[in-house]
Amino acid sequence: MSGGLAGLGRSVTLEVVAGHAGVSRQTVSNALNAPGKLRPETLRRVQESIAALGYRPDRHARSLRTRAAGALGYGLAPGGSGGLADRFLPALCHATEMSGRSLLLFTARPSREGLVAYDELLSHGVVDGFVLSHVVPGDTRHAWLAQRGVTFTSVGRIWSGEQPGPWVDADHAAGIEAAVRHLHSRGHRRIALLGCPPGPGAAEDRVVGWRRACRAIGLPDEELLLTRAVDGIAGGRAGTAQLLDASPRPTAIVAVSDDLALGAVHAITERGLRPGLDVAVSGVGDSAVCTAVRPALTTVRLPIEEMARRAVRLLDEAAVPVLESSAGLLLAPELIIRDSTPPPAAP
Amino acid sequence: MSGGLAGLGRSVTLEVVAGHAGVSRQTVSNALNAPGKLRPETLRRVQESIAALGYRPDRHARSLRTRAAGALGYGLAPGGSGGLADRFLPALCHATEMSGRSLLLFTARPSREGLVAYDELLSHGVVDGFVLSHVVPGDTRHAWLAQRGVTFTSVGRIWSGEQPGPWVDADHAAGIEAAVRHLHSRGHRRIALLGCPPGPGAAEDRVVGWRRACRAIGLPDEELLLTRAVDGIAGGRAGTAQLLDASPRPTAIVAVSDDLALGAVHAITERGLRPGLDVAVSGVGDSAVCTAVRPALTTVRLPIEEMARRAVRLLDEAAVPVLESSAGLLLAPELIIRDSTPPPAAP
Repeated sequence: MSGGLAGLGRSVTLEVVAGHAGVSRQTVSNALNAPGKLRPETLRRVQESIAALGYRPDRHARSLRTRAAGALGYGLAPGGSGGLADRFLPALCHATEMSGRSLLLFTARPSREGLVAYDELLSHGVVDGFVLSHVVPGDTRHAWLAQRGVTFTSVGRIWSGEQPGPWVDADHAAGIEAAVRHLHSRGHRRIALLGCPPGPGAAEDRVVGWRRACRAIGLPDEELLLTRAVDGIAGGRAGTAQLLDASPRPTAIVAVSDDLALGAVHAITERGLRPGLDVAVSGVGDSAVCTAVRPALTTVRLPIEEMARRAVRLLDEAAVPVLESSAGLLLAPELIIRDSTPPPAAP
Repeated sequence: MSGGLAGLGRSVTLEVVAGHAGVSRQTVSNALNAPGKLRPETLRRVQESIAALGYRPDRHARSLRTRAAGALGYGLAPGGSGGLADRFLPALCHATEMSGRSLLLFTARPSREGLVAYDELLSHGVVDGFVLSHVVPGDTRHAWLAQRGVTFTSVGRIWSGEQPGPWVDADHAAGIEAAVRHLHSRGHRRIALLGCPPGPGAAEDRVVGWRRACRAIGLPDEELLLTRAVDGIAGGRAGTAQLLDASPRPTAIVAVSDDLALGAVHAITERGLRPGLDVAVSGVGDSAVCTAVRPALTTVRLPIEEMARRAVRLLDEAAVPVLESSAGLLLAPELIIRDSTPPPAAP
């Protein structure tokens, strides 16, 4: 079925990557086969060149050099990817290929019911490892896979400790902390948090980041400055309306998602106030809307591509047990400063 | 490696789908195995129930009933998916599974250089068919695959006729026409087009839709009402600035993308005019930004999920040759009316 590729060329070679990254050929080779040998900045630079150039090491040659290549499975929840697909899937696909595997995409309902799909893929020998996301409290996939000796990594922090296996996540608390510190440096002194409804793990982690920053700086973190809303533009509007009723009013609102931040912008505008100038706003996610709205939104950008790369690497390391059974990796997010967080208006 | 699923249950059965869709069990079975037997509305209803419930027919049983199951390959361009991934990939994944196959995601540079990746997948026997997107003029993948007897479908219209194989696309001209007719019905009489730079096929198709609607209704389609800009918010601002310099000024701008429409909203605001009220605006895409901005954007929503389903079905039909070698399928998009296209302000 397949023909020769004579004349097609393989224009992006190891040398091309080395030239692009400004490193030696050996360094590129190490980045592929022994990443632990490189300094993190060097590794990052080489990985960025690899991604930018679309370099593909020969999968067959690599699998001979390293380990038997198989396919990695990634299950999508029916009905959508929650907005992560545009950045996460291409990065996961590339990282999987760089590890000498293929990426098999499948649909599976969350947790227990979805195991039918996992079982089918394993029993047909199509897949030999999984990257799990959309992890829910009481998720039974982890124990089910671990019992069968199947390697996997979770994308998303395991909070309860009840699920085994390595995980990778963004350090959300640190992201919120960075937003609070930025607003403080701009002169804000009443900085509110627009959070998610109370729940295990993730929602509280953002509150922890806000409190930690406020207390370290000496800003108030009273209950009047904390509101919780269902994620989405409508939730952000309702939550912000509450915050704006407080007296004295917060001069800045740190929202835990871009959609909540957008709702805040709408609510501020509806009060006849100027978003940014009268009440500063920041979000989390760096979604396309951040640069589409005016003022452009300051936001915490999550290291999605790096999370995908690390998920695949953790999976390799899990196969030769280096990590403890439920160890995780928290990656630092980055604050992107735009127009929605200027200094507060003079009273 | 794989264990039993005793006690797990397979809670979504054919019966459950039939109940949800309000049809018989046989109708669900036909939707899976003989979709041509059903009326399009019925087929659509069953498919929506299947997607909503996350129903998975047993792939192994299906492949025995129908044809040997393999994997479908879908190549992502390095560096991102162009914003379609969030709707397209979950739909493609589900449609592929419904056809009894797996979906293998891989990265490949566009056209000729990417063939290395296609060749590798074929030579390892991992994949036996492809869904192609990001088709470029002079794309060599189609002929290369056709020569090797590999089945494939293009997502995106084949304009030149030089590439063989079936394709599916949204009817972009019809979408623009619907936007013009909507604005006319609201009372607008000078409706401009904010298009893309001239190019083969797709860009001109939008202009054709605009002209066709204007001429059918009896509206002007003079050159002053047509501007072309590089897709993006910045391009939309620049193009709109030109349109607003014209005298008399258009009262409505039909943009061929949501990003261009957003740029138009910004340019209108910067002139001290009210987007929507003074100059109406519509976009194409129904991206998340449409409901994030004020006024919320009227837009042409593309039938992305249906395109994914049809792409997989065309591939099956191509294997038992039903379609001519370069036949295509144009699906109707849907106009979503929001606040950015009210009646024109009184002069």
